[in-house]
Amino acid sequence: MLSKPKSSFVKSLQIKKYRQAEQCFLVEGSKSVAEVLQSDFEVIMLVGRPAFLAEMDRYASAPRERYDVNEATLASLGSFQTNTTGLAVVRMKPNSSPARQAPLVLALDDIRDPGNLGTIIRTADWYGVRTIVASENTADVYNPKVITATMGSFTRVQVYYTALPDYLRQHDATVYGTFLTGTNVHQVNWISPAIIVMGNEAHGISDEVKSRVQQPITIPRVGKAESLNAAIATAIVLDNYARSQK
Amino acid sequence: MLSKPKSSFVKSLQIKKYRQAEQCFLVEGSKSVAEVLQSDFEVIMLVGRPAFLAEMDRYASAPRERYDVNEATLASLGSFQTNTTGLAVVRMKPNSSPARQAPLVLALDDIRDPGNLGTIIRTADWYGVRTIVASENTADVYNPKVITATMGSFTRVQVYYTALPDYLRQHDATVYGTFLTGTNVHQVNWISPAIIVMGNEAHGISDEVKSRVQQPITIPRVGKAESLNAAIATAIVLDNYARSQK
Repeated sequence: MLSKPKSSFVKSLQIKKYRQAEQCFLVEGSKSVAEVLQSDFEVIMLVGRPAFLAEMDRYASAPRERYDVNEATLASLGSFQTNTTGLAVVRMKPNSSPARQAPLVLALDDIRDPGNLGTIIRTADWYGVRTIVASENTADVYNPKVITATMGSFTRVQVYYTALPDYLRQHDATVYGTFLTGTNVHQVNWISPAIIVMGNEAHGISDEVKSRVQQPITIPRVGKAESLNAAIATAIVLDNYARSQK
Repeated sequence: MLSKPKSSFVKSLQIKKYRQAEQCFLVEGSKSVAEVLQSDFEVIMLVGRPAFLAEMDRYASAPRERYDVNEATLASLGSFQTNTTGLAVVRMKPNSSPARQAPLVLALDDIRDPGNLGTIIRTADWYGVRTIVASENTADVYNPKVITATMGSFTRVQVYYTALPDYLRQHDATVYGTFLTGTNVHQVNWISPAIIVMGNEAHGISDEVKSRVQQPITIPRVGKAESLNAAIATAIVLDNYARSQK
């Protein structure tokens, strides 16, 4: 049985302050939990319906600490009400600088929307980008909405939070940045190692980061929308980069 | 002053059944309301803070019916709590078949998530696509979450709901559809007029629609994500189409 203190502990992980104090986060839904059990993340606790707990038993890394709860309890614990299977409490990884210089790094300058960040991580994973460097004001990767939107890709893409201008100064890579004017993304001559900077949903790339961008690029507009969603713009740039690598 | 019945009327428009009965929908936030006032949609009523009402006065199409409300009332009326400016009640347009065959039509087969639909409309507008044909089980374009995610692009892109298999059968265009296998989207030879079909978030394109697709296309995967978000996939396909049109 899930005790009251345990239940409070799980619920508290919806809030960043408590995630940081506990160094734990939530993964919700059987598909995502199955992915995290097959990754190098440490799963501490499983909470869910009996069928969910039985299903997760097939993974050697499934923890002993597990609680069988009814649907109402489950809905009260997690961040989305449609989770009818279960959730996992998982240990965070340290925020450490990526070990080696990848041919392509994605840099996020103040991406605020959790759904956008999650979708960007999922898209990065599709295009084989293993490292994202994020400004400290970017949404928290361990926010349950981010984790859910990644559809399991958070297990394969590292998000490293740091002061972006310093990171760009210290790394010897060609820095590309997306703006409303710049070289047409269809015609960019990508030089490796490359860092692609994507800016904030409303304000774009900040002035401090802008001064570190060597190659401004733009997505050509045919119609009349004022701008593109940040995750959409990231995907289009990554697709163009991938296309050039063949 | 906003009477109780008027207030109930506005609130009711968050629900599809009432939108259909009233043939009205909500547009929230000053930026989107300014866009709709400059479009060919008929705005019936404005509700908001005094500064918002004054700002909208510059548009000739601003209606006489307007209510000055405080922030708490405004938050209770709309669908998102961060709206601190105002909203408009707007008349729906009839669901009529697009007048002429466009060189490119986007067809949505059961896109369920309002955020995805809104982002798809915004992206279509960026790429100059004026017509979207949607299956009847696709999310409602007049859902406030869809309208907000379009960032005003709903004024420039028509969404026509119909039985998709019939529409594809009756139109003499090359039908492209996105699948996990097919011609690499980087190498497609687009033949105009073209219809590009995008499928449901979880299940892809339905069997009935699949049988009408002449050219299956796919977005090549470099990494390990199982799939892409539906709006992301749409954007990548539209960018590749746009690139080929030069």
